[in-house]
Amino acid sequence: MSIPSDPKLLLNEARAGNRAALARLISRIETRNEDTKRIIELLYPLTGRAQVWGITGPPGAGKSTLVDRLIAKLRSEGKKVAVIAVDPSSPFSGGAILGDRIRMQQHFQDEGVYIRSLGTRGRHGGLSHSTKEAVLALDATGFDVVLVETAGVGQTELDILKLAQTVIVVLVPESGDSIQVMKAGLMEISDVFAVNKSDRPEADKLVRELVANVGLNPHDEHSWMIPVCKTEANRDVGVAELLEQIAKHQAYLETSGKKAEKTKAFLREELVDILIEGLKSSLDSVLATDGGRELLDQLYRKEIAPYEAAKILSGRAG
Amino acid sequence: MSIPSDPKLLLNEARAGNRAALARLISRIETRNEDTKRIIELLYPLTGRAQVWGITGPPGAGKSTLVDRLIAKLRSEGKKVAVIAVDPSSPFSGGAILGDRIRMQQHFQDEGVYIRSLGTRGRHGGLSHSTKEAVLALDATGFDVVLVETAGVGQTELDILKLAQTVIVVLVPESGDSIQVMKAGLMEISDVFAVNKSDRPEADKLVRELVANVGLNPHDEHSWMIPVCKTEANRDVGVAELLEQIAKHQAYLETSGKKAEKTKAFLREELVDILIEGLKSSLDSVLATDGGRELLDQLYRKEIAPYEAAKILSGRAG
Repeated sequence: MSIPSDPKLLLNEARAGNRAALARLISRIETRNEDTKRIIELLYPLTGRAQVWGITGPPGAGKSTLVDRLIAKLRSEGKKVAVIAVDPSSPFSGGAILGDRIRMQQHFQDEGVYIRSLGTRGRHGGLSHSTKEAVLALDATGFDVVLVETAGVGQTELDILKLAQTVIVVLVPESGDSIQVMKAGLMEISDVFAVNKSDRPEADKLVRELVANVGLNPHDEHSWMIPVCKTEANRDVGVAELLEQIAKHQAYLETSGKKAEKTKAFLREELVDILIEGLKSSLDSVLATDGGRELLDQLYRKEIAPYEAAKILSGRAG
Repeated sequence: MSIPSDPKLLLNEARAGNRAALARLISRIETRNEDTKRIIELLYPLTGRAQVWGITGPPGAGKSTLVDRLIAKLRSEGKKVAVIAVDPSSPFSGGAILGDRIRMQQHFQDEGVYIRSLGTRGRHGGLSHSTKEAVLALDATGFDVVLVETAGVGQTELDILKLAQTVIVVLVPESGDSIQVMKAGLMEISDVFAVNKSDRPEADKLVRELVANVGLNPHDEHSWMIPVCKTEANRDVGVAELLEQIAKHQAYLETSGKKAEKTKAFLREELVDILIEGLKSSLDSVLATDGGRELLDQLYRKEIAPYEAAKILSGRAG
């Protein structure tokens, strides 16, 4: 099967279920040039149908196994599922994550499942602009659920709030102690808790603690009470109940008007990201000129101070 | 002792060794307003004397104990030392890091030591603009060494390259397996390796592997060969040798001209950060107007596409 290079034809192929075309489409979004822009403008009118879920939690919580189980259940309901696995590009956590990716390839033969790893390595870390635009592409190409999985380190699990409509925080009984101090932080991020490996000792203790905290911190006054689900992903226990709670949260978002709010916040981010990307690219150009280099030398020699130099640079970048 | 509020007087007080004034100075840099700008312009001409070291490594490698030991040795040489401990603001790793901070308070009584925790929580994660400008402030107020310690998760240990002249990567024998795949990544970051807890089994194996890889990957052709030091921070073993290697690296930076290169790269980042911060603030204002909200609504209703909307927004943000 040949893959068309014209953006419109490429998008049509991807929408028709050609996964090589979809892979190419996302790669072209990752290149970040004029072509990216053309592709996003083309596919944007087709977005707005997919549910976007985020899954985060500490390393070793069993997120990938849980994602596998969720995929299987969603497929049995006939839903198309895309997974974006965000690799935090940490030199200290690379190994385990690559392993997870390989395991998920069991769905490789299923045309209703698409799994893609995207890195965070970039100027500012966190979820990249490409990741956000890849979600738009997967939405526009007919996936019912787009699942964004992050490794739960650093900035990514905070950024996931900007991307996902429903955030599932996966914990294990052993997380109990280490998260004590930050429980308030987890409450802010989470829409649904999954206590995985819940056959282990201490699981009930963690569940009780979470439930107690949830009672104190509903998301707002009239309001979503964060459910706490017990799962054992490796034995496929509790996964249906977890899906049910996710569905309830999605229904809550619709009826409360919060879905529109979240979409608008996402679009606001997209606008700001586009303009920052443009500014950086324009500054790169100016700083590569003789004048740009001279300005930097003047700053280095302390003949000028940083904010003053930035003002001059800004004038030249137009 | 009263703390003056005038930026010039405040800076003078901080330079005279008044640590409350220094703390206030850095807090005012963290507020990110016109005052921040005034303070940076004032202190910038006084910078350029401090050595800036970065310390990173996986959680549990003993970074804080090692930093303690380095501080003690540097103090015995009469050097003033500042530590910026970067908290990655992860809800999953908060506890341990707070504990480290408390331990470092043993230097609290020593006026030649200043320790400050700064978060990374911000729009884009990674090391914040405030962290970079805090380094300028500590340089300008007379510290001989500014040590930036990061928890080694996510983006921060990549960003540290932009900030530090000499990066020390701390590993422990147990890190051996998990870092296999990413060894090349560690080589790019590290100027000096410290294999800590080196009394443990497998330490020599890790040292041998690192040395073998260092041989294959010198930083450039004529060039710095990354040393691998064995340390036992909790027994104060190997710390003097580590300091010696750091001093050699600093001498190498001076003679090779790489110190100027690194400073210019840091200043380039500072200029770009200043302009991005300005753009964001201006976009926040425009998006809060009726016209801004209407543009976002049009985008939400798909009457306009993202890059087109961004262009209009950019025109209004001037």
